[in-house]
Amino acid sequence: MDQSVLTPDTDPRERVRAIMYHLARFDNTAQHTWFVEIVRAFLGFEGERVTLADCTWLCDQAERFMAQPDWEEQVWHRAHLEKLFLTNDFDDPLTGFNTARYVPCLRTDDLVFHLDRPEVMHRLEKATDLTNLKNVGKLREALGKLFDHFTRNGARACAISLPPDFSPKPVTPGEMAADPRAFSYGLFWMLAEHCRDFKLPFDLMIGVNRKVYEKGVYQGQDLFDQRTSLIQYAKLFNAFPDVTFCVSVLSSGQNQELVSFSWIFPNVVTHGHWWYSNIPAYIEQDLRARLQAVPKTKQIGYYSDAYKLEFVLPKFNMYRRILAQVLADDFLRTRLASEAQAMELARLLLRDNARRIFNLT
Amino acid sequence: MDQSVLTPDTDPRERVRAIMYHLARFDNTAQHTWFVEIVRAFLGFEGERVTLADCTWLCDQAERFMAQPDWEEQVWHRAHLEKLFLTNDFDDPLTGFNTARYVPCLRTDDLVFHLDRPEVMHRLEKATDLTNLKNVGKLREALGKLFDHFTRNGARACAISLPPDFSPKPVTPGEMAADPRAFSYGLFWMLAEHCRDFKLPFDLMIGVNRKVYEKGVYQGQDLFDQRTSLIQYAKLFNAFPDVTFCVSVLSSGQNQELVSFSWIFPNVVTHGHWWYSNIPAYIEQDLRARLQAVPKTKQIGYYSDAYKLEFVLPKFNMYRRILAQVLADDFLRTRLASEAQAMELARLLLRDNARRIFNLT
Amino acid sequence: MDQSVLTPDTDPRERVRAIMYHLARFDNTAQHTWFVEIVRAFLGFEGERVTLADCTWLCDQAERFMAQPDWEEQVWHRAHLEKLFLTNDFDDPLTGFNTARYVPCLRTDDLVFHLDRPEVMHRLEKATDLTNLKNVGKLREALGKLFDHFTRNGARACAISLPPDFSPKPVTPGEMAADPRAFSYGLFWMLAEHCRDFKLPFDLMIGVNRKVYEKGVYQGQDLFDQRTSLIQYAKLFNAFPDVTFCVSVLSSGQNQELVSFSWIFPNVVTHGHWWYSNIPAYIEQDLRARLQAVPKTKQIGYYSDAYKLEFVLPKFNMYRRILAQVLADDFLRTRLASEAQAMELARLLLRDNARRIFNLT
Repeated sequence: MDQSVLTPDTDPRERVRAIMYHLARFDNTAQHTWFVEIVRAFLGFEGERVTLADCTWLCDQAERFMAQPDWEEQVWHRAHLEKLFLTNDFDDPLTGFNTARYVPCLRTDDLVFHLDRPEVMHRLEKATDLTNLKNVGKLREALGKLFDHFTRNGARACAISLPPDFSPKPVTPGEMAADPRAFSYGLFWMLAEHCRDFKLPFDLMIGVNRKVYEKGVYQGQDLFDQRTSLIQYAKLFNAFPDVTFCVSVLSSGQNQELVSFSWIFPNVVTHGHWWYSNIPAYIEQDLRARLQAVPKTKQIGYYSDAYKLEFVLPKFNMYRRILAQVLADDFLRTRLASEAQAMELARLLLRDNARRIFNLT
Repeated sequence: MDQSVLTPDTDPRERVRAIMYHLARFDNTAQHTWFVEIVRAFLGFEGERVTLADCTWLCDQAERFMAQPDWEEQVWHRAHLEKLFLTNDFDDPLTGFNTARYVPCLRTDDLVFHLDRPEVMHRLEKATDLTNLKNVGKLREALGKLFDHFTRNGARACAISLPPDFSPKPVTPGEMAADPRAFSYGLFWMLAEHCRDFKLPFDLMIGVNRKVYEKGVYQGQDLFDQRTSLIQYAKLFNAFPDVTFCVSVLSSGQNQELVSFSWIFPNVVTHGHWWYSNIPAYIEQDLRARLQAVPKTKQIGYYSDAYKLEFVLPKFNMYRRILAQVLADDFLRTRLASEAQAMELARLLLRDNARRIFNLT
Repeated sequence: MDQSVLTPDTDPRERVRAIMYHLARFDNTAQHTWFVEIVRAFLGFEGERVTLADCTWLCDQAERFMAQPDWEEQVWHRAHLEKLFLTNDFDDPLTGFNTARYVPCLRTDDLVFHLDRPEVMHRLEKATDLTNLKNVGKLREALGKLFDHFTRNGARACAISLPPDFSPKPVTPGEMAADPRAFSYGLFWMLAEHCRDFKLPFDLMIGVNRKVYEKGVYQGQDLFDQRTSLIQYAKLFNAFPDVTFCVSVLSSGQNQELVSFSWIFPNVVTHGHWWYSNIPAYIEQDLRARLQAVPKTKQIGYYSDAYKLEFVLPKFNMYRRILAQVLADDFLRTRLASEAQAMELARLLLRDNARRIFNLT
């Protein structure tokens, strides 16, 4: 479709209409299912498929409902939300929102991969009130300030997404200065050291190549390369036994590695079903393997981006349905667990493991 | 088994007998299922397993039926065939058959990988009536002549099979002259340019290594290397937004890449279940993922080699049975689609998408 | 958990208690299922989950039962064992046990990968009564002596586990002397030559990286790298058409390669569901593909380490249950096989193929 109608300066109703017009072309997909579940759950839609003819009514409903002062509260309630994890830029002041509800999390892609850009360096200088950050000692001091700021404001994790060929190891300051790749490894290693010192879990989202489809919309450009291995992180996992690594992967092939690494490494935890793996066919087989081989206390069942609050409900419902089916098929029908035990397993994956690992009170 | 009985100079009935003798060793396989379905559908066989004792009767039946002057018509009718795609050598005169029924398609493996062989170069010179084809300008002119000849004769696609390490990019004439690998990339790139100019889809069959089992029979020597990625084609997909790339892959691992690339790139289409992926266990999981994540208009459900016309029926029946099961399980039982919608989805995958993408009238 | 309680000098009952204490953390896993099945089948336990409270009773039962002079016989009988394959160090005298029951097998990891260690070289010198084994001719003579010793004592296979990047090829004595990697390839190639000459199948367990988790317990340190391919063994499979290679792989991704290589190479046989693939979710999909594409005579269904005799029963039961389900779903319900034919298939995979391939009388 023509991307020009997707820009902010298009009239919102025109934008909605343009998208709806194309909806029928992918009404087979999981993404479409999420959309229909949103309009049914939150906008009072009662049909099974949305057509262009529903556009005006849906927009009217959305405007009316979302203008209600307690709409956030309503969505929060209907989606059974307790806490929601953000990913915040490293220079986020972390003010203006309820950090007990919206849990801050230090997103570090910019630091590891873009600190050579003057504007990113400038942001870091400003956020830490430090200069001369090309000096590795100073840089470490800056990271310390960020971790201090974030943990004081309730941050519960450090997070980063990593390309398929990333293979971190300790490097010297001299190596960091000489080579951008070594710089990334060195800075990443310092982040792990701070996670250890500040007792934060480190969320690793492994395998994404950025800007592959050059003309794609924002978040519609990235893809992966299946030729990657968790063995690239063996040094890291060995070096930081006290840091819990919550690992997300992009393919079912690498999920088998993740299952095996979580089986062997005490500090590696399975984390959700990320991005291109976030469809029922892959969730189901990846989940089955995790449930059969990874200790139940080491699995965070699900998480997903929710650019809008309403997005949480259909995504978690999709996961819950698959989890229910897998528990029924692999644990109840095989008599490996009672219903009460299966429910406990579900609760660990959906809630209790996350609360324990991210140290939520 | 001894390959000598498989040569053309063996008496055909002896050849059949030799194969039948070994049939029981693989009567568990999908391939065996196809064979049994052929003799049941076309030769009037009523048993479940074929044994040596059935040999004479089956040969008699085959000779009797296949000698009927309208046998082609009968098979065509029983298999519900509308069109059948060929893959033609680049120097095929494309005469002597009904191109409305047997749709020509320009197969280009020889051009991209074997033009350094004198006999292939000679065939190209003869087919295009041009000489001095080591000159890149001349070579481009030759390709233009081939595309012109093929499209005038009703060709609907350009096709090629590619090894796992192929990673095409634009190269200069100088680079093409200096290095065989660069030559392949350059010629492949020119083919994509011609697909764009002649408005032909480009069928890419990705991942096959030729002549791995050295003593194998024809078509029984090739295998794959799972260490390959569609990221190798990102430059190509970006450079030719107007060319539809119908992509076939060899492994379930790479199918997840294909699902993701078709989800993101508007010009990448999923294409069948190729070769080592063409068995129910892999078709089922690959198909489920495609149906859940790739827009329904961007999927060509199935195709397969049919060295003999009779081969089409059992292969497509296998696919249709799996498709029916997946639609029932993932769309009807989950109430994501009505029966009519599931039927429309099936029709797109089995027929309508191919007709639209290959511009059949 | 604290590893110190796992050492041999901990009181056995304390060790059991420490493990039981942690059991609930992985009571969702296949490994836990095996344990429960052992205590139910052999120790008379009647519950569904074992808790700390059961510790004393279970230890009492174990002591009582396992002290019975015919305990080995009882386990053998209940597990329906006929033969059990060992993997013996190359310098094992192969005395002191019934080799008709406990079939010897020459394990060769030490030779291929650790002959540069003086103690290993010394063991080889001692076992063969030869010296100067850095000389390739002498080394070959030594291997001949080992094969002679093993086959005289009833050995039925040569076996080795191999790292993901192993890519064997013939090398010259000079190359072997110059480079440890080439030495490994050369020695491995000699082993294949001896397998050919002594008519032994060669078990290849492909893909394991040793000592990845540095602090892990014995057998709890190894992991894999999915970036590996059976194409690395194409030269080997071509060079030794008379050697049967029983190939085990570690991932579902590589299982698809194995299915394809066994489909094409007459001398490649699928061998069990190894290690990280040895859980129901992966066995099921790997098995389905094998049953649909690999000739039924070329599949050894299952094997697994059994550090204690009691371990055989639950592991094979797991496999048998999955095999029964796959045969029911893919062969009986689809009417591709009668019950008798499905039973024959099961018998080939569970018993008859192994007896034929390993030449058991």
